[in-house]
Amino acid sequence: MAGLAEIARAAGVSVSTVSRVLNRRAGVNDETRQRVLAVLAEMPYTPRGLGALQRTGVVGLLVPELSNPVFPAFAEALETRASRLGYASLLCNTRSASMREEEYVRMLLARGVEGMVFVSPEITNTGGEDVHGYYAKLLADGVQMVFVNGGAPALDVPDVAVDEQLAGYLATRHLIELGHTRVGFVSGPARSLPSRLKRAGWTAALEEAGVRADPAWVAHAPFGAEGGAEAVARLLDSGARPTAVICSSDHMALGVLREAHRRGISVPRELSVVGFDDIPMASYCAPALTTLAQPIDEMARAAVDELSQRLDPDGRRTVGGSYSRVFRPRLVVRESTAPPA
Amino acid sequence: MAGLAEIARAAGVSVSTVSRVLNRRAGVNDETRQRVLAVLAEMPYTPRGLGALQRTGVVGLLVPELSNPVFPAFAEALETRASRLGYASLLCNTRSASMREEEYVRMLLARGVEGMVFVSPEITNTGGEDVHGYYAKLLADGVQMVFVNGGAPALDVPDVAVDEQLAGYLATRHLIELGHTRVGFVSGPARSLPSRLKRAGWTAALEEAGVRADPAWVAHAPFGAEGGAEAVARLLDSGARPTAVICSSDHMALGVLREAHRRGISVPRELSVVGFDDIPMASYCAPALTTLAQPIDEMARAAVDELSQRLDPDGRRTVGGSYSRVFRPRLVVRESTAPPA
Repeated sequence: MAGLAEIARAAGVSVSTVSRVLNRRAGVNDETRQRVLAVLAEMPYTPRGLGALQRTGVVGLLVPELSNPVFPAFAEALETRASRLGYASLLCNTRSASMREEEYVRMLLARGVEGMVFVSPEITNTGGEDVHGYYAKLLADGVQMVFVNGGAPALDVPDVAVDEQLAGYLATRHLIELGHTRVGFVSGPARSLPSRLKRAGWTAALEEAGVRADPAWVAHAPFGAEGGAEAVARLLDSGARPTAVICSSDHMALGVLREAHRRGISVPRELSVVGFDDIPMASYCAPALTTLAQPIDEMARAAVDELSQRLDPDGRRTVGGSYSRVFRPRLVVRESTAPPA
Repeated sequence: MAGLAEIARAAGVSVSTVSRVLNRRAGVNDETRQRVLAVLAEMPYTPRGLGALQRTGVVGLLVPELSNPVFPAFAEALETRASRLGYASLLCNTRSASMREEEYVRMLLARGVEGMVFVSPEITNTGGEDVHGYYAKLLADGVQMVFVNGGAPALDVPDVAVDEQLAGYLATRHLIELGHTRVGFVSGPARSLPSRLKRAGWTAALEEAGVRADPAWVAHAPFGAEGGAEAVARLLDSGARPTAVICSSDHMALGVLREAHRRGISVPRELSVVGFDDIPMASYCAPALTTLAQPIDEMARAAVDELSQRLDPDGRRTVGGSYSRVFRPRLVVRESTAPPA
């Protein structure tokens, strides 16, 4: 294993010439290029930090997308903590591109990434056996990882999560306490585990109040503001006509606010709206959004600290047992909820 | 250079055992570990894709932060285009962490990244000779890079940028056409090149209308919503008391809207507000924000295509000449601007 300097010395050229040849850049004449290639055939180049048994100090952070502001917020919080512990972070946005999460993971491993934090991993949205198999294989290969908001009991992967069911329950109970009984749920896709958990909380709060949790009050749509607008439109056009809705995310709630505005429906007078996440924008939209806050900084800290402990060869490793930390969401009451008119 | 499989064969163990030894994981007994280490001493492990002369297909995308939604938007657009051209992207958020841009770049190079796109690079906010020297050194080392919104004429780096001066001019002219003459500027830091360019456009539009561009109407603050609130508070408390403001970014404009709301100042009746960027949130805030849109998708496409052409060893490379593409911002009129009361 040779570094750039050794190769340059052996070929009698500068380091930048070796770099140019390695990277197939222009600016090197043919004779020099051949000489460098001859040396490289004898002394293969190994980028620094990638030699066997060396710790690279680089962790991978995988988020599914960046358009929902909660993911940039998680990315920044994770990076800040990783940086404090001395790690550099590589951020991968796994669903925006055509590349699947699995391909990104392979690419990161080839780049010498030591460990990974998966925020809302694919497993959360499919739960299929194929996805289980893929994570199980990573585990078997000794890859260290931590899940944020998307654990799987069958896998021995530590996870850090907000209690989604409690969020659905607290959001719905807040509306019931204001006097609402017709509470709809603007939900992400039915296959999404967090959406299913929030629905369980919504059901529990309604039933506790003696109200039937009518499936007609649940509208599924893709995540995002457009999805939120589409789902609430279906609820408003249906016979259900709720006086209040809870949403799978603040991002969907923003779509609800826009659709209500478009229809001339006054929020909160005619429709109360509760989001989820507490993205920074929740206090800037109009009306400012009542929401259930995820404790993003604390969750990011727990996830990175757990990963770091597992990466430390001298650390006390939790062997064989899944390590799970659940965080409570916190109700933040702003302007988008009020008693029914 | 040996792959995992060859090393495993030579040591008579499984691939996952080699991986565990390489990564210092538990689950390998001492005798086996020693055998694998002995083989590794003879056959150093080289991760696939990192051998000399191989193209890695990985590009680095560096953004300064993720809290201003324009940066996640650029990141997604760049990744989408890179992915379409067959590249995997590694995203780095250079200013959130304690690590400086330069350290990130070094880390990316060690990870075999082929080329880099810098969005709002450090050079934009300092312009100091030290930063020039750092980019010049990268260039000398044969690193391929493209700047987005932050070129430096002294460097031979291709750049793609929105016309910031035109944005300042168009925003101010829109307000003048509505009848405003007291137009303030809620600006980012004075050393920021984009802020200086927008100020030049603001000055030009005011002077064209026969209005003196009074320095008392410019308030500098750190980028971000908090900065926007702080800067407009200073303008409103001063003798200047503008009837309208243009802002360095939509993110700052959101802070202006919140501060106006807090003071009971009606937007746009008592204060017109123009943002810059057209982040998705601009149409969700209240009132919806009049802004100058950056053509993010087109700019991202131009940046990635330029990088890709420079990375392609068979491509027609623009040698020696700086390649610059400037995009026009587009005025998007929404609800936050109106004639003065």
